Amino acid sequence: MTEPCFDVAHLAHVELLTDKFEESLNFFVNVYGLTESGRDETSAYLRAFDDYEYHSLKLTRSDTTGVGHVAYRASSPEALERRVKVIEEMGCGIGWVDGDMGHGRAYRFTDPDGHVFELYYDTNKYIAPPEEKPALKNIAQRFHGRGVGVRRLDHLNLLATDVEAIRDFMRQALGSRVTEQIVLDSGTLAGCWFTVNNKTYDIAYTKDMTGVKGRFHHVTYAVDQREEILRAADIFLENGVFIETGPHKHAVQGTFFLYVWEPAGNRVEVANAGARLILAPDWETVTWTETDRKKGQAWGLKTIESFHTHGTPPVEGGAH
Amino acid sequence: MTEPCFDVAHLAHVELLTDKFEESLNFFVNVYGLTESGRDETSAYLRAFDDYEYHSLKLTRSDTTGVGHVAYRASSPEALERRVKVIEEMGCGIGWVDGDMGHGRAYRFTDPDGHVFELYYDTNKYIAPPEEKPALKNIAQRFHGRGVGVRRLDHLNLLATDVEAIRDFMRQALGSRVTEQIVLDSGTLAGCWFTVNNKTYDIAYTKDMTGVKGRFHHVTYAVDQREEILRAADIFLENGVFIETGPHKHAVQGTFFLYVWEPAGNRVEVANAGARLILAPDWETVTWTETDRKKGQAWGLKTIESFHTHGTPPVEGGAH
Amino acid sequence: MTEPCFDVAHLAHVELLTDKFEESLNFFVNVYGLTESGRDETSAYLRAFDDYEYHSLKLTRSDTTGVGHVAYRASSPEALERRVKVIEEMGCGIGWVDGDMGHGRAYRFTDPDGHVFELYYDTNKYIAPPEEKPALKNIAQRFHGRGVGVRRLDHLNLLATDVEAIRDFMRQALGSRVTEQIVLDSGTLAGCWFTVNNKTYDIAYTKDMTGVKGRFHHVTYAVDQREEILRAADIFLENGVFIETGPHKHAVQGTFFLYVWEPAGNRVEVANAGARLILAPDWETVTWTETDRKKGQAWGLKTIESFHTHGTPPVEGGAH
Amino acid sequence: MTEPCFDVAHLAHVELLTDKFEESLNFFVNVYGLTESGRDETSAYLRAFDDYEYHSLKLTRSDTTGVGHVAYRASSPEALERRVKVIEEMGCGIGWVDGDMGHGRAYRFTDPDGHVFELYYDTNKYIAPPEEKPALKNIAQRFHGRGVGVRRLDHLNLLATDVEAIRDFMRQALGSRVTEQIVLDSGTLAGCWFTVNNKTYDIAYTKDMTGVKGRFHHVTYAVDQREEILRAADIFLENGVFIETGPHKHAVQGTFFLYVWEPAGNRVEVANAGARLILAPDWETVTWTETDRKKGQAWGLKTIESFHTHGTPPVEGGAH
Repeated sequence: MTEPCFDVAHLAHVELLTDKFEESLNFFVNVYGLTESGRDETSAYLRAFDDYEYHSLKLTRSDTTGVGHVAYRASSPEALERRVKVIEEMGCGIGWVDGDMGHGRAYRFTDPDGHVFELYYDTNKYIAPPEEKPALKNIAQRFHGRGVGVRRLDHLNLLATDVEAIRDFMRQALGSRVTEQIVLDSGTLAGCWFTVNNKTYDIAYTKDMTGVKGRFHHVTYAVDQREEILRAADIFLENGVFIETGPHKHAVQGTFFLYVWEPAGNRVEVANAGARLILAPDWETVTWTETDRKKGQAWGLKTIESFHTHGTPPVEGGAH
Repeated sequence: MTEPCFDVAHLAHVELLTDKFEESLNFFVNVYGLTESGRDETSAYLRAFDDYEYHSLKLTRSDTTGVGHVAYRASSPEALERRVKVIEEMGCGIGWVDGDMGHGRAYRFTDPDGHVFELYYDTNKYIAPPEEKPALKNIAQRFHGRGVGVRRLDHLNLLATDVEAIRDFMRQALGSRVTEQIVLDSGTLAGCWFTVNNKTYDIAYTKDMTGVKGRFHHVTYAVDQREEILRAADIFLENGVFIETGPHKHAVQGTFFLYVWEPAGNRVEVANAGARLILAPDWETVTWTETDRKKGQAWGLKTIESFHTHGTPPVEGGAH
Repeated sequence: MTEPCFDVAHLAHVELLTDKFEESLNFFVNVYGLTESGRDETSAYLRAFDDYEYHSLKLTRSDTTGVGHVAYRASSPEALERRVKVIEEMGCGIGWVDGDMGHGRAYRFTDPDGHVFELYYDTNKYIAPPEEKPALKNIAQRFHGRGVGVRRLDHLNLLATDVEAIRDFMRQALGSRVTEQIVLDSGTLAGCWFTVNNKTYDIAYTKDMTGVKGRFHHVTYAVDQREEILRAADIFLENGVFIETGPHKHAVQGTFFLYVWEPAGNRVEVANAGARLILAPDWETVTWTETDRKKGQAWGLKTIESFHTHGTPPVEGGAH
Repeated sequence: MTEPCFDVAHLAHVELLTDKFEESLNFFVNVYGLTESGRDETSAYLRAFDDYEYHSLKLTRSDTTGVGHVAYRASSPEALERRVKVIEEMGCGIGWVDGDMGHGRAYRFTDPDGHVFELYYDTNKYIAPPEEKPALKNIAQRFHGRGVGVRRLDHLNLLATDVEAIRDFMRQALGSRVTEQIVLDSGTLAGCWFTVNNKTYDIAYTKDMTGVKGRFHHVTYAVDQREEILRAADIFLENGVFIETGPHKHAVQGTFFLYVWEPAGNRVEVANAGARLILAPDWETVTWTETDRKKGQAWGLKTIESFHTHGTPPVEGGAH
């Protein structure tokens, strides 16, 4: 057995594509409660009040929806070099890019399903302007109380046509651990939850039944308390945001969740994991079966059909 | 700059001494909500419902109170060897012991204040007996709902006569990072919060004004929600447990807290950190000043006098 | 317009029939968290920790399930006499009975669907034995923290074949106000929520599509916080209790709810209304339409089919 | 024993005087989360999102602070006449006034300490403009999520030099019931909590040690959950609002509380009573002693000195 890998520190940001930029931006700022750090020709850089970097969500104008890229931050410059070497050897590297308003040079690569990833170390830490200075110096920005007011980026979920390939890839490329997974009776891996640190998961992949590659399932920010998710449901309701399912508790990972669709159709979650962390260095993957899955969510809620079919960008025909 | 150290996985357990063994045990099991895994001649081995190891609290019969030892689990067998080598070179090692009911061989050493530590890798994972099997397979034990029902060991706080010496020691011995600290106007380090992983802290040290070495301040378990701490306050009240201070929110680390004294006088906390984690690999220590400290806790509660004086074992004379 | 009627103080207790007495009793005491005040040949008298009377639930051995009777307490002896006079004139009176372990003489009558009601004034207030004395003298019993630990009886829901007839009856017999109702496009009254005081409702009736009279839908106890309902869901899950639906928020009345079936099949709810009260003396009935109803519950949850069909006692054939 | 009186339906609004009108208004609207219904030359009419009347707080420009008047709504026109007759006979009536933007004709009178009261029936119900229409038709206004976002007016607390006189007065004039009280060892009534309905209290009086008459202690709005009060504390902190004490739980009435001072110095509370109601028509007054009081609040917090001395308008010299 090899030692656990600590080269990747954490999920850093997600680039989301929208074909309704103004409506999406209004949703993320005024309803979801992110704050804009800056903007360039194509994108708004957004972050939650306790995200320490310049941005955790890059919202980009596009003629479609879905994910632009996903970025992780390395643990150190040396760790970055080690990872890049591994990824290059894996043959899935794209190459170095200069970075953007949010961070320095980054190495680009793709997962087996074609989603684009970035890995970097040099970052642009958020420095609160006077009006956003917090009363307590250990949070990144004042608790502004606007909209849902999420605290920090938590994780994202991507769709993939071959989750087994993803499982191998993430372990090798990022040194991720598989904390939980769903294995169907046929032996097919239907879903896989990964983490690079003590969070229970920072990325999950679920099987895309449409056979289309590179799609996005959802991005999630964390709030401190479950009660904030109940409050969020009222805020979404009053703001005409489509609530897809929740609030309820997932059996997988035990996360308390609420899913909505932002105006362009990308699925967005608000979640709370309570005090649950993966502290064991030798955590054994928890495997859920098809029988487990039929029980529904933790407290019996049947999983809504669109949760298995809706991804972005939408797919023409049957599923969307 | 050297790379961050990941050799130590997490705080594993605390041995607490009690001169009122039966009363203390009743408190921890029936009021605080821990479960007993086993017992030997001197000690009861206790754990919270989602602690994955055999125990996280070793409650030991004694003629005094305070801490017996503190144990961390290493990230791998190799990491354990690396740490032991460093600690031996530091000259504070005691040597290997065989372990106990909860874990295998462990290396013993002392901090500069004389508190005893253990570091080990081989552990005895908790296997739930049939009546304690959880409905959801990703938690260690069923959510039994007994007493406060804390979820997992969170951190402990020790008193030390020289916190500066501790700061150097913890960084070197365990590779801990200092996430927050209190520096008095005189330049003296009054308190220091350390972590070896993404938790905001797993151990804190505060200055012991009595000049007595090796004392204990408190041990803390985490609950999933702040509301559980408000519920805990009612449970403590109804069970005649002395509530020292709280519920309130610490300015330092933003932890929502409640402090009580178990029957033998050891201070015990119930806490919730919300979704706050230290994800930045280059987190810069947050320093609180004497002026900050005078503002009281986060929402203005003045820190109670006994919080600065009460430790275990008690000291004869003025402070206790 | 006549003046509002204040003759009836509050819903006092519900008698529930069970053909699995021991299992039902174990559920109500150890899982739901009621306390037994006493027992006679046929029944156990149970109450929540802050119910001020001897009992709020009379659990009765039977060869069937459903409701035995429903009792309200009058505001004064004079108010009781006034109500009895009205009810006798309405022609639905049964007559006086001596009362039981929980209260003195009571007047029995039936609603148009055949459910039995009692109205009384003389009651047997709960006096906490030493081991149940609360730390704070303004609650009826100590906060014991056992199981879900509901606070007080909140309301019940009965099925009726003709809800319009019930609406007239409740207004006339008890002086109840209709706070909310569901009127179908056909003009049929599908549901009606009544209150005799500032609670948003103490009894609700919904249409029984089976055409069978006298059936029971559910009884509900209130907890102080929504978070306790999320905790209750875990407790039910761990104790193998069937969770029918929830936690979620009703559009009607805005109640945060969770429904389970006790071992004999009677539906039981845990609910929280927040700070919502009906304070307006001239409150205008809120009417929900079929279109409103199709939107599902407040946050979009589709109402589960069994909620429209399952009542106790079960009906042979199609619905149950 | 006479029958209970139900002539008065509920506390309706409080007029608060401020010598910093703009700052106070900004606090109440943007931090506390009230909405302005309208304004006349001297006053802004404010209400919480689920207050059904035009206003529950009348904020009036003044050269001082404290309470302008307190208004209750009668249960019916006839009930209003009955109360006015009683009050006139008591000799403390002032006479009829035309009302203001919020309600119709009202009868004015004074309590023995000189505070001005109004009683009325004809009211101006709040009709939400399109942009404030709620998603659910059973709340008065949309849940806007601005600031603390309190739900409804709950109660107020006035200071009085002779609380015994107040106790007799409130019972006679409004038909209030005394739900709890504090009686000192000397026999002096130090505090008294009254209700006209099922709320545990709508007004409280505590003894003014300065000997000055007609002063104001605080006004309180209710939120649905205790967690909202913890969130409110962060909002107050970030907005530079002085937090006097809390969050904590009162022993008296069990209310979870948080006290702040609005910019002009008037004390304002955010509170949650859980599911606690006074349903017993023959509720027996709970009496707290000096010994009880020394234990501090419910969980041991010592009552802050300013809570006993600070009232508005301030008194020159020692207390303020």
